[in-house]
Amino acid sequence: MTSMARRIPSQIFRSSLKTLNRAHIGSLYHNPRTFSTSLPRLANRAIVYTSTGNPSEVLSARTYPSLGPPPQGHVNVRLLCAPVNPSDVNVIEGVYPVRPSLESLVGSTESVFVGGNEGLGVVQRVGNGVDGLKEGDWVVFAKAQSGTWASERCVNGSDVVRIPDMEGGGRIGEVQGATLTVNPPTAYNMLKEFVDLKAGDWVLQNGANSAVGQAVIQIAAHRGLRTINFVRDRDNMDELRIQLHGLGADQIFTYESLHSKDTISHIKSLTSSAGGIRLLLNCVSGSTTTSLARLLGANATIVSYGAMSKQPLSLPTSLFIFKNLSCKGYWQQRWYMERGRTEREELMRELVGLIGLRKLREPEHEIVRIGGGLSDGEATQLVQGVMDRIEKGHYGKKILFKFDTVDS
Amino acid sequence: MTSMARRIPSQIFRSSLKTLNRAHIGSLYHNPRTFSTSLPRLANRAIVYTSTGNPSEVLSARTYPSLGPPPQGHVNVRLLCAPVNPSDVNVIEGVYPVRPSLESLVGSTESVFVGGNEGLGVVQRVGNGVDGLKEGDWVVFAKAQSGTWASERCVNGSDVVRIPDMEGGGRIGEVQGATLTVNPPTAYNMLKEFVDLKAGDWVLQNGANSAVGQAVIQIAAHRGLRTINFVRDRDNMDELRIQLHGLGADQIFTYESLHSKDTISHIKSLTSSAGGIRLLLNCVSGSTTTSLARLLGANATIVSYGAMSKQPLSLPTSLFIFKNLSCKGYWQQRWYMERGRTEREELMRELVGLIGLRKLREPEHEIVRIGGGLSDGEATQLVQGVMDRIEKGHYGKKILFKFDTVDS
Repeated sequence: MTSMARRIPSQIFRSSLKTLNRAHIGSLYHNPRTFSTSLPRLANRAIVYTSTGNPSEVLSARTYPSLGPPPQGHVNVRLLCAPVNPSDVNVIEGVYPVRPSLESLVGSTESVFVGGNEGLGVVQRVGNGVDGLKEGDWVVFAKAQSGTWASERCVNGSDVVRIPDMEGGGRIGEVQGATLTVNPPTAYNMLKEFVDLKAGDWVLQNGANSAVGQAVIQIAAHRGLRTINFVRDRDNMDELRIQLHGLGADQIFTYESLHSKDTISHIKSLTSSAGGIRLLLNCVSGSTTTSLARLLGANATIVSYGAMSKQPLSLPTSLFIFKNLSCKGYWQQRWYMERGRTEREELMRELVGLIGLRKLREPEHEIVRIGGGLSDGEATQLVQGVMDRIEKGHYGKKILFKFDTVDS
Repeated sequence: MTSMARRIPSQIFRSSLKTLNRAHIGSLYHNPRTFSTSLPRLANRAIVYTSTGNPSEVLSARTYPSLGPPPQGHVNVRLLCAPVNPSDVNVIEGVYPVRPSLESLVGSTESVFVGGNEGLGVVQRVGNGVDGLKEGDWVVFAKAQSGTWASERCVNGSDVVRIPDMEGGGRIGEVQGATLTVNPPTAYNMLKEFVDLKAGDWVLQNGANSAVGQAVIQIAAHRGLRTINFVRDRDNMDELRIQLHGLGADQIFTYESLHSKDTISHIKSLTSSAGGIRLLLNCVSGSTTTSLARLLGANATIVSYGAMSKQPLSLPTSLFIFKNLSCKGYWQQRWYMERGRTEREELMRELVGLIGLRKLREPEHEIVRIGGGLSDGEATQLVQGVMDRIEKGHYGKKILFKFDTVDS
């Protein structure tokens, strides 16, 4: 990626991040308690870093005083749960086009980056001049790189979006709320915005057991679309098949099976009566994706939202010319930047609706609890270990941090 | 390319080629002169092949009796000039998705493929029931793989399109007419149909000295668009620079200069004030095109119409996701298949208009004359030699065949 590629989106974000930064600086200066020498009883732990690099080295857990009353227009939010998304790792490594700003958290003058882009919060305290939010509301964060790996955040009221209740009342699950901003909307919009699909049409995807892939399977099934799902071969392949079929997957194959002419003929005969596959959702790239592209029908679209192989997307030019292939990218963050709050709220209502209908389950996950009894040093070790395991691909599921409040 | 990729377009064409085939078979059976034992004075030479393969091996020149009167609905067309396009080579090799049908030419029962997709014809004789065409009209061929490497063809009147006169009267040049169907429309439409470009905008292209590339430069210059043109380094680079600047090229670089940070900074600073480059026209693919893609601005489109490097188009997925890159293909033949005759005629009027304004010159070319005095054996050797030189890249310009009528 050129330096320009990185610069453009980060410039777009700079102004919003400055605002966010001022919010925190604001809460520091507006709250006389932060100048007290006695720390408040409940403290705020955050996973922070001061320079980009390997997450298993640069991250540390630090405890700050608990937030005071929020200033005008702001709310204090207690984080219930926050996932570690692949992009979070890229942000910390410094290779992502959106970068957080340095912040000075309440009770400290040192500037840090707070990890985490996405999370589920509950409104703890509402400042003057904030409309539409009340104590106890569940919210997600409207801005990129909100720094969600923390017990508490003080943010502008317009920088959170209230999660609607399900039809007939009741809340969605904590894990669903914590992962509502990035993965399900990506799946939902990729299935909606590129190809006009109707019931019976086939969709092809790789990385099908990723959180986005799982959401794609479920949303597609709900719409009567049929999915062909590719995953890496693994020891517990039968288990994975059962799980993905349970979500509504029609066909499941491993990348290895792309070497088999029988598989290829089978897929072609399955899909030809429906006019061929017109949408490939790609989060892998590299040579297996080249092979998948050859399975597509005329006028198909490849939508890329990741490159887990760390290889480029490489395609024969003939597919573009003679099969009229189109290639596009999808980035949920751009969607949020380009659309207004109303559209975002509508999207969230759609997704909460699907959850309410039990058509969209929480992703396979594991919660890593950052216990209140741990010292910052112990918590740092715990977090670094998690990041190291993620980097080595030792988890096959979504990891979420859950912070206990820290007794100080 | 999968077998399906080839099959789909050829299926689309099969019916039209069958029609064309019937036309020739028709002219065979409707014309009693073809059963005469004395050959007519002027004969019809064609470059034919009976099985696909290396053009410098499988092509041969054969002389057939001159056409008799055209049957109902048909016209006899005398070919004035017909180019050898890169796709003609692929067709003969059997690697192109559109294939000609086998035909039995007048005076012979052997089935052959006739080479050539594009050419300029003059109407020699008009059959009953043909409207809008008269003797002496200049025409191009409406159907793909019309078999234009021949002295004469008998075709359905609806399978040719009359070339309009220039504003104020007068005909376009022979070479312009012979190359009017493939290259200039490709350039014109690629600049029109993908990105909404306005005067001052930048367009990037590789293979800039190809016939399409030359047309892109001129049509862009006429619209006030600025072009950045990449070519292979060569001995007569200064000459090529003068030629391309003469056509209206703004910037000319070699692929080698992509290794220079200065060139890259220069291009970025040239184009950034206009919002960055939003269109890349690609007929090369491979690694140099990957480098060119990195020069593009946000929301840019790559349109591919060739792959002269014989390498795939390989791009970092991040360009799709974070710069919102789109990749598409362009195939003039699809445009013709999808649009009606009115749109085709309008396109031709636009191009003839540009030629009349001297805004679109004939491409750099060399005419290979297939002399009437040559025996079929000598003509075969000549044609095979030309194809061999093309394969080895010994021409830097468009080659056109021009047939003398053969004394029999």
